Amino acid sequence: MFSSDTYITRRRYLKHNISEGLIVLLGNVDVPMNYTDNTYYFRQDSSFLYFFGLDFQRLAGIIDADSGDEIIFGDDVSIEDIIWMGPQVSLKEKAARVGITKTDSYKNLQMIIDKAIRSGRKIHFLPPYRAENKLLLSDLFGISPSKLASYSSLELIKAIVSLRSVKEEQEITEIRKACAVGYQMHVTAMKMAKAGVQEQTIAGTIEGIANSGGGMVSFPVILSQNGETLHNHDHSQMLKDGRLLLVDAGAEIGSHYASDFTRTVPVSGKFTQKQREIYEIVLAANNRGRELTKPGTTYLSVHLAAAEVIASGLKDLGLMKGDVKEAVRNGAHALFMPHGLGHMLGLDVHDMEDLGQIYVGYDDETRPVDQFGTAYVRMGRKLQSGFVITNEPGIYFIPALIEKWKAEKINTDFINFDRLSGYLDFGGIRLEDDILVTENGSEIIGDRIPVTPDEIEDLMKL
Amino acid sequence: MFSSDTYITRRRYLKHNISEGLIVLLGNVDVPMNYTDNTYYFRQDSSFLYFFGLDFQRLAGIIDADSGDEIIFGDDVSIEDIIWMGPQVSLKEKAARVGITKTDSYKNLQMIIDKAIRSGRKIHFLPPYRAENKLLLSDLFGISPSKLASYSSLELIKAIVSLRSVKEEQEITEIRKACAVGYQMHVTAMKMAKAGVQEQTIAGTIEGIANSGGGMVSFPVILSQNGETLHNHDHSQMLKDGRLLLVDAGAEIGSHYASDFTRTVPVSGKFTQKQREIYEIVLAANNRGRELTKPGTTYLSVHLAAAEVIASGLKDLGLMKGDVKEAVRNGAHALFMPHGLGHMLGLDVHDMEDLGQIYVGYDDETRPVDQFGTAYVRMGRKLQSGFVITNEPGIYFIPALIEKWKAEKINTDFINFDRLSGYLDFGGIRLEDDILVTENGSEIIGDRIPVTPDEIEDLMKL
Repeated sequence: MFSSDTYITRRRYLKHNISEGLIVLLGNVDVPMNYTDNTYYFRQDSSFLYFFGLDFQRLAGIIDADSGDEIIFGDDVSIEDIIWMGPQVSLKEKAARVGITKTDSYKNLQMIIDKAIRSGRKIHFLPPYRAENKLLLSDLFGISPSKLASYSSLELIKAIVSLRSVKEEQEITEIRKACAVGYQMHVTAMKMAKAGVQEQTIAGTIEGIANSGGGMVSFPVILSQNGETLHNHDHSQMLKDGRLLLVDAGAEIGSHYASDFTRTVPVSGKFTQKQREIYEIVLAANNRGRELTKPGTTYLSVHLAAAEVIASGLKDLGLMKGDVKEAVRNGAHALFMPHGLGHMLGLDVHDMEDLGQIYVGYDDETRPVDQFGTAYVRMGRKLQSGFVITNEPGIYFIPALIEKWKAEKINTDFINFDRLSGYLDFGGIRLEDDILVTENGSEIIGDRIPVTPDEIEDLMKL
Repeated sequence: MFSSDTYITRRRYLKHNISEGLIVLLGNVDVPMNYTDNTYYFRQDSSFLYFFGLDFQRLAGIIDADSGDEIIFGDDVSIEDIIWMGPQVSLKEKAARVGITKTDSYKNLQMIIDKAIRSGRKIHFLPPYRAENKLLLSDLFGISPSKLASYSSLELIKAIVSLRSVKEEQEITEIRKACAVGYQMHVTAMKMAKAGVQEQTIAGTIEGIANSGGGMVSFPVILSQNGETLHNHDHSQMLKDGRLLLVDAGAEIGSHYASDFTRTVPVSGKFTQKQREIYEIVLAANNRGRELTKPGTTYLSVHLAAAEVIASGLKDLGLMKGDVKEAVRNGAHALFMPHGLGHMLGLDVHDMEDLGQIYVGYDDETRPVDQFGTAYVRMGRKLQSGFVITNEPGIYFIPALIEKWKAEKINTDFINFDRLSGYLDFGGIRLEDDILVTENGSEIIGDRIPVTPDEIEDLMKL
């Protein structure tokens, strides 16, 4: 938690940037796993955290853009709660920590909203992603759950995106801590990767590292010899010599700032020639991506430049052909990298994705491209100093996709389909760093996790 | 997953035990953490798992008690799904694994239900605990979310409770595996418990053990020097010599069967005289509880017998006074043990709690008692061979509760409040085993985690 001034300043910004009306930000509530009282780890809503800082369930905050009033709604605990949960800080005290003096019981939120509705005031709320908050908003506003997103406030979304996109110095410090935990997770995974070890054993262990740090994983661990499956949460395989192991994992520390890294290592501890060839192309794309990342450049153009490195490398190996720039223009590289170069990172691992990727990753100047692969680019817009983004190119050999393109004769001018038959059991390679856009360029946040083939082979010898 | 015969037999039982109508069982869907696509680990609904066995999200099953028809509703995947999630087994194939031949797309569930509503048929569904399923049921039936529980089927609840309460041999085998993982978690925690170590480090590590086993924790780890807080999920303290560390944790293995154990150990590795005195009382209550557990006995009577062991021990120490049986009748022991002796264990750590504790833990013969402490008894009813339950007595010194009783002069005939002042920083002790009710008595499932003071001190020396 930051100083109360931090939250006061952020809320002041909102008041100045919202023309009029009542801003309602709901915190999250506990979510049941298999019955009401057996809940998943509590995860507060990130925008609520950003403006109200309080990491407790069943709170709501109101900011009146007209009167300037700020109120936190919640409930104090009973003696029964103390027996089960221990002594708790009072709502008044919690609110004071984030510079708010007015509090009220949770049920009185309805009264305030009823009054605003009756007065015909504009009410701003965010599109809900949790079903619990859909039910709550539906009750509060009398709007059917399926229509809530349409009534959410674009003005509020844009104001929040514009503020949260540029990270404060203290936020970068938190992200740096999350990166340090992520570093440990990845180095541990590399050391554990050996033939005969089950994927799940490593996945569980590195998740334990995230938990031991006082937080949790920033997203479910992706760890698989089938690295060609982009979000592979199946960890049932036994590691085998000759295969590659792709690990995409990060930590979310106690303050909820996230890290997100990917490394790909040879189970045997030594890359084969074939693996090293592909690996070096991905690494070159990653390095090129970071070199080009600087304020004023669009991340879409960086994505396309990294795609050219990939197309060019694959052409050298005889897997692609034709003009590299034209191949990328036609989206031919997307057979091998059907995803974007990266995304914003902050309180969420895909920062602010709940507010709408189109508002986070694009603007009036840079619009999404409707082409397979490039359509998945989450972050396209012009970069600013203070943005934190991931840089994660990859090359994958996805049998189902190769088959489909071959059968449908897609991009036959640029792909040597015959040569691909030797790569159907290759898997995939992705290399991901978290980078900060600085005044003049960009920098990797934290110590770079071993990434060159030699560094990795050296580490895996230990 | 068990053989298809298992699921066929269980569903046949349901059809025989539901007089008429359509039984609708919803599986769970993924739950967002901080945005739609960043989800918690998927946890299937336990009753859906029990009857349909399939551990995938967004499925629903229908059993027609009249025609005998069985259908699974779900959707097959697209090429985009394969890129992100890997090749998936078809719905037809999934259904076949649990002995079902009819499948349909998820959206067609609405048609079947509309038809049943129009025909005036009885439709049985369970009370929803997930907000996503509240929204879905509300859409399917046109019933407002807050009224759904009232419309849920008591006949279905009772039929399911009666079936799931008595564990099959193969279920006990699964619980045994979960207990083996729980054993490792607890022994690891004992070995790690040392002054200067943070609670969170141990909590994270033992959670990693549960994850490495291919499953997860069966409930959020309770691990604290403030053991007097019954469900303490705050792990921020540094361990200190002289304190006790209470760890209540269990694993849920891949098949989702659970374990649930509690141990309490001295951080220094050696119990003080005062700690050992209280510890021995709790251990005696635990042993007495298991000795009395047998078919035909109510677990409420076992709870009260364990409470008498506690009252008697505390009387010997001068903390309680008066007639022991009368003290327990008056609920005086509940100052120290304000919870029940245990609960059912199976696919849920509090088995079937979503169906209603009153139906799981009580019957027409044994009714809940409305007295502080005893009112928290989750499991009261007559035991049957094949029940799996926890046995978890405890003694806690809860400052807020002691203060309240002292101030309100509650049970002053049985409590020596003056003597309690020396125990306000004691914490709490709970000792929990998982036990199986057998033909003639009961047995601890799996190897008993070290529990005598000597066993614990020996282990902590290592």
